[in-house]
Amino acid sequence: MTPSRAPIRIAVLGAGTVGAEVAAQLIEHREEFEGRIGAPIALSGVAVRDLDATRTRALPRELLTTDSRSLVLGANIVVELIGGVEQARELVLLALESGADVVTGNKALLATHGPELFAAAERVGAQLNYEAAVGGAIPIIRPLRDSLAGDHVRRILGIVNGTTNFVLDRMDEEGLGFDEALAQATRLGYAEADPTGDVSGADAAQKAAILAGLAFHTTVPLEKVWVEGITGVTAEQVRTARAAGQVVKLLAICERITAPDGTEGVSARVHPALLPRTHPLAAVRGANNAVFVQAESAGDLMFYGAGAGGPETASAVLGDLVSAARRHVIGGPGLIGSAGADLPVLDHGVVETRYQITLAVRDEPGVLARLAGIVSERGVSIETVEQSRAGSDGTASLVVGTHRAREAALAATVEALRDAAEVEAVLGVLRVEGE
Amino acid sequence: MTPSRAPIRIAVLGAGTVGAEVAAQLIEHREEFEGRIGAPIALSGVAVRDLDATRTRALPRELLTTDSRSLVLGANIVVELIGGVEQARELVLLALESGADVVTGNKALLATHGPELFAAAERVGAQLNYEAAVGGAIPIIRPLRDSLAGDHVRRILGIVNGTTNFVLDRMDEEGLGFDEALAQATRLGYAEADPTGDVSGADAAQKAAILAGLAFHTTVPLEKVWVEGITGVTAEQVRTARAAGQVVKLLAICERITAPDGTEGVSARVHPALLPRTHPLAAVRGANNAVFVQAESAGDLMFYGAGAGGPETASAVLGDLVSAARRHVIGGPGLIGSAGADLPVLDHGVVETRYQITLAVRDEPGVLARLAGIVSERGVSIETVEQSRAGSDGTASLVVGTHRAREAALAATVEALRDAAEVEAVLGVLRVEGE
Repeated sequence: MTPSRAPIRIAVLGAGTVGAEVAAQLIEHREEFEGRIGAPIALSGVAVRDLDATRTRALPRELLTTDSRSLVLGANIVVELIGGVEQARELVLLALESGADVVTGNKALLATHGPELFAAAERVGAQLNYEAAVGGAIPIIRPLRDSLAGDHVRRILGIVNGTTNFVLDRMDEEGLGFDEALAQATRLGYAEADPTGDVSGADAAQKAAILAGLAFHTTVPLEKVWVEGITGVTAEQVRTARAAGQVVKLLAICERITAPDGTEGVSARVHPALLPRTHPLAAVRGANNAVFVQAESAGDLMFYGAGAGGPETASAVLGDLVSAARRHVIGGPGLIGSAGADLPVLDHGVVETRYQITLAVRDEPGVLARLAGIVSERGVSIETVEQSRAGSDGTASLVVGTHRAREAALAATVEALRDAAEVEAVLGVLRVEGE
Repeated sequence: MTPSRAPIRIAVLGAGTVGAEVAAQLIEHREEFEGRIGAPIALSGVAVRDLDATRTRALPRELLTTDSRSLVLGANIVVELIGGVEQARELVLLALESGADVVTGNKALLATHGPELFAAAERVGAQLNYEAAVGGAIPIIRPLRDSLAGDHVRRILGIVNGTTNFVLDRMDEEGLGFDEALAQATRLGYAEADPTGDVSGADAAQKAAILAGLAFHTTVPLEKVWVEGITGVTAEQVRTARAAGQVVKLLAICERITAPDGTEGVSARVHPALLPRTHPLAAVRGANNAVFVQAESAGDLMFYGAGAGGPETASAVLGDLVSAARRHVIGGPGLIGSAGADLPVLDHGVVETRYQITLAVRDEPGVLARLAGIVSERGVSIETVEQSRAGSDGTASLVVGTHRAREAALAATVEALRDAAEVEAVLGVLRVEGE
């Protein structure tokens, strides 16, 4: 769809991993984005420091510019992905003051200058979206800001740093010491060359400040977040915890608390903590992230997913971008939900899945071979067969696990088995998912 | 805050569990909602069938009306919580056509008349929010509609019906048969007197239709959702699954698939399925819900929480209501995020938590008593003590677990222990969370 209105002009600042991915997707999937937004869009440019840098080579040369300010001033939506604080702050303020909406994933910027930026956005009625700042692609900002806007958050426990979770996970799973586990994380690309910002808890602290501000509708300065990293966590502590049914996790904790003098307030802190292994956060392994929210009415909620990565972060940025763009098109089709593409709903018979079929069969020689023949004739292949010993009545039970096949073929197979002389009954059919 | 503009008029249709809760919260927390929205609000009325019904007694009499149509026509935002399909459809259409935004949790309505309602909303540029329709308080509609708007969803696996999950969980945990487990669910209030809609999969099918439509930007008629319930699941199947490291769950599955003839399309289906116990959905116990989303860029995401309940559903409805109201106040403070209340960030010393302190101590008689004295003098009480046998050097390790106490007292305790003659070293201090 190409509604006849001026396109929404989008400027991307920065062409690092995420910036280049966002720009490439806007070019490649432009029509699809336009369908979801309900208006034409135009990528008006990508601001880079160096026109000849490697990453930007895949982007059309004419989109690249080193003049970020002019790019910002000509845009309706500015996507800030340059990182760092000072230059990012200037450009975001310039964008907001010119009335443009801003999408950013810059947690350092928000944790240090959030209030100033929110105020600037509010003054002009612009949007400032930052889903990518916490938890990568995991939707957590929007649920806190919108979905829980009618509730009272009591407490947030978050695993918001993938590097430290990976390190602690290796210590837990393999009994490694901190240094060894960190070395492994570096080798596998889960830790940066200088991992200080992660292992010190500083990265998690920025996210804690953002989450606490949002959850408690207040301003939480970064310097008021209590921070302890994981460098002091020993193999012995992790081992002892494991033996006691606990696990050590670096948690970002945001909480409404009352001081001994009765003052109501909030606490935001980051430190390693022992969690029972039965806690939902204990199951968050590797470099994944998860945020556990306790709200007065909603109860316990958890949001889980990959906390970092180029495509994951780009997904969050693009979601914010589409949301911002939709506000330019009140009533546009993207606004509502179930509209846009028109994919058909296909017949159930074409769905691919695996079956587990439980049969009561006569315990005679050759039964297995004959039944296997019935299955394979219908184009279904058997993955596992398990036969129980026959009872006194000469009946055995047979559990057949199939490989993936179309529902139509699987259903026909079950029918044929039901009719087979060797089969006394089809005791059950279950599909197998999640593998 | 009471900005000087006409209040946003809110009509609540229905005063059942959720409707009465929503109305009560709007009255009780009005100022807080106004702060979050950035404009005054007014609950203009609550439409009921019977003015003297029990539930409505707690609401101010003058708010009650049996004239739903007049109430709808005088509102800016209509909250539909009457349930059922036909009357709800009429009132929602009336509201949308009059330009009002609508919030509903009515999954039957959306699954059967969704496209008509979305089209009506689109025509006039009104909003139709329905977070409560799937997964109770779990934010899943908004993440799919907005956060993942720049991504491609491949597959959704959802546990979206609490009753059936409770029943299957009891069968799994206690080895009960279906009938016994259902009887237990009924006794404990997890199943309705007539559980047909739940155990047949019909409720989950409505949710699958909604999720598939949203995820794949297309229309999924309810009658095209393949449905099998859990009435045929046997204790034997559940036991066998358990022995094989699997669990039986009723899944709503929405998937992009390709037919053998190359047609691209979607499948929406509900049926019991075997999941490996290591799958994140396998850990969803009791009457909880969870939705597992696989997206092209974002990877695997999971959203978890209580799937039903009055306050939980009211939380989702109120979140939708605040979001709808904020759009009436472009630039209002509620729009942005970290503003509104101004709770102070309290000093870390007032935070309450539990410590686990690991000490190297001299293995002498009376050490434990003296150290316990040091701890209790600082107002901290000991919950557990575990002493290892002393090594050849006469040093034993002692792990002290405390009850909850303020950080200041706990830190002072650690300091005093560090200085105690009996203590050779404080080997580690970890906080204990999530209990």
